[in-house]
Amino acid sequence: MIKLNFLGTSDAIPTAMRNHISVLLTYEGENILFDCGEGTQRQFRKAQLNPNKVTRILISHWHGDHVLGIPGLLQTMSLTGYNKPLYIYGPKGTKRFMNQLLKTFAFKKNYEIKVQEVSGKFFENKDFCLEAKSISHGIPCNAYSFVKKGLIRIDRNKLKKTGLPNLPFLKNLKKGKNITYKGKKYLAKNLTFKEKDIKVSFVMDTQFNESIAPFVKNSDVLICESTFSKELEELAREHKHLTSEQAAEIAKKAKVGKLVLTHISQRYENNLNIILNEAKKVFKNSVLASDLMSMDV
Amino acid sequence: MIKLNFLGTSDAIPTAMRNHISVLLTYEGENILFDCGEGTQRQFRKAQLNPNKVTRILISHWHGDHVLGIPGLLQTMSLTGYNKPLYIYGPKGTKRFMNQLLKTFAFKKNYEIKVQEVSGKFFENKDFCLEAKSISHGIPCNAYSFVKKGLIRIDRNKLKKTGLPNLPFLKNLKKGKNITYKGKKYLAKNLTFKEKDIKVSFVMDTQFNESIAPFVKNSDVLICESTFSKELEELAREHKHLTSEQAAEIAKKAKVGKLVLTHISQRYENNLNIILNEAKKVFKNSVLASDLMSMDV
Repeated sequence: MIKLNFLGTSDAIPTAMRNHISVLLTYEGENILFDCGEGTQRQFRKAQLNPNKVTRILISHWHGDHVLGIPGLLQTMSLTGYNKPLYIYGPKGTKRFMNQLLKTFAFKKNYEIKVQEVSGKFFENKDFCLEAKSISHGIPCNAYSFVKKGLIRIDRNKLKKTGLPNLPFLKNLKKGKNITYKGKKYLAKNLTFKEKDIKVSFVMDTQFNESIAPFVKNSDVLICESTFSKELEELAREHKHLTSEQAAEIAKKAKVGKLVLTHISQRYENNLNIILNEAKKVFKNSVLASDLMSMDV
Repeated sequence: MIKLNFLGTSDAIPTAMRNHISVLLTYEGENILFDCGEGTQRQFRKAQLNPNKVTRILISHWHGDHVLGIPGLLQTMSLTGYNKPLYIYGPKGTKRFMNQLLKTFAFKKNYEIKVQEVSGKFFENKDFCLEAKSISHGIPCNAYSFVKKGLIRIDRNKLKKTGLPNLPFLKNLKKGKNITYKGKKYLAKNLTFKEKDIKVSFVMDTQFNESIAPFVKNSDVLICESTFSKELEELAREHKHLTSEQAAEIAKKAKVGKLVLTHISQRYENNLNIILNEAKKVFKNSVLASDLMSMDV
């Protein structure tokens, strides 16, 4: 099961209710952190999650409100015995920023940090892959997708029709291997099906752009910045951000399953329905992220 | 009136209850921040205090848990229109660290940052002065004192005995000026007294050392790190920290008015009385700082 923990959901200025942005995606042994705003390590503590389980950090871009939690998190991971390689991915410039950051805040580090500047599909194993797409935010900035690959399953109905007995060797079908029983050959492709992939996409900061929808297409969950409401569309354009209406338009065009609005400006703290209702008018299955909210995908 | 706001009170690893360390001292138009751990800007929001009123930041030393809130705070101050010079003081190395920090986390800055590496009395105006003392913590590290100067007051009893009428020119006595009335001279020193200074001292990280007590001598309030309890004195020595018993010994020797224990290790989160009771046995007027606690001096 894929689990999302929303550790922080504010824009550049945090509020009493919202910390700077960060989302943790957990799947099997992987704990993938998307952005790491200031205070993220403490949000882990509040959510009763262990920062030492983080396996990868994906950085959308190097504006302070998305990255200022990195040095403290790395330091605490070191103090509490983290000892595996830590993978940090980001857009162009990430290696330089990480070098400067480690030089500025020196600390004893008992693990290796592997930094990669990424675009396109940049990680894949048998279970899932990670993809990056450059988006427009004034400085190098990536959107990301996590895609859990659908498993190959045996089609029990079709299997029944063959009259094959339920023996251990049938599991070879799931590996794509054809089998022979009592002289007759059975093709794997005729007796199996592939589950649907599960896709979760992250658009943490961007201006409205036609190229986003194709990248996040068919996501089961799209986590999307929604800094302003539409009456401030001009300000959104100026600061290269989205309104919640625009986030919903992307969700609709991309035919996603669910839209989660985050990166909310402090000005809506006492009037959050503006943001949510505006999105819902365009894309019904919209929800508003709040700090420490968790969600199963 | 001097007001203290304890914005964060944890040691290197924050907890759900305690943010990284920072204390705000407010006096007249001055808002002086002592250390600025990660998440300090959000603690301002939780305490309903305005970070844009900060006038000076005093940094004890450059371990991450005491300074990682600086770049985010400076950025938010810029975003919200701070436009006066901001004074940042710290031990040797502070200029280099600040330069690296501003280079690493570039942001639009609409105010001047004035950085000074300080020791001894480094700031004085008619109302108060600030003093620094190098203490022992493995890297350059300062303790600080804020001293509000006692005002010169007219001694009403002595004045009454002179028979002088209550006329506006009497206020010159407070400026140390002698006055002449009907041919007779009255000396200012005979008709005035100086209020007691009010001293607040900050020892944010240190190993036990004989030189601390003389520096914080006669403080009305001593805010002192107290990372461990005495059963971990060995660990305290190794990490160059104090036990609460040692903090209390300093308070007793320095004859301070009140001891406020802070920078508490996460291991005492569910057993804070160990820290407090141990200190109280040595120095009765000890209190334990908690996040968002405020105190009038």
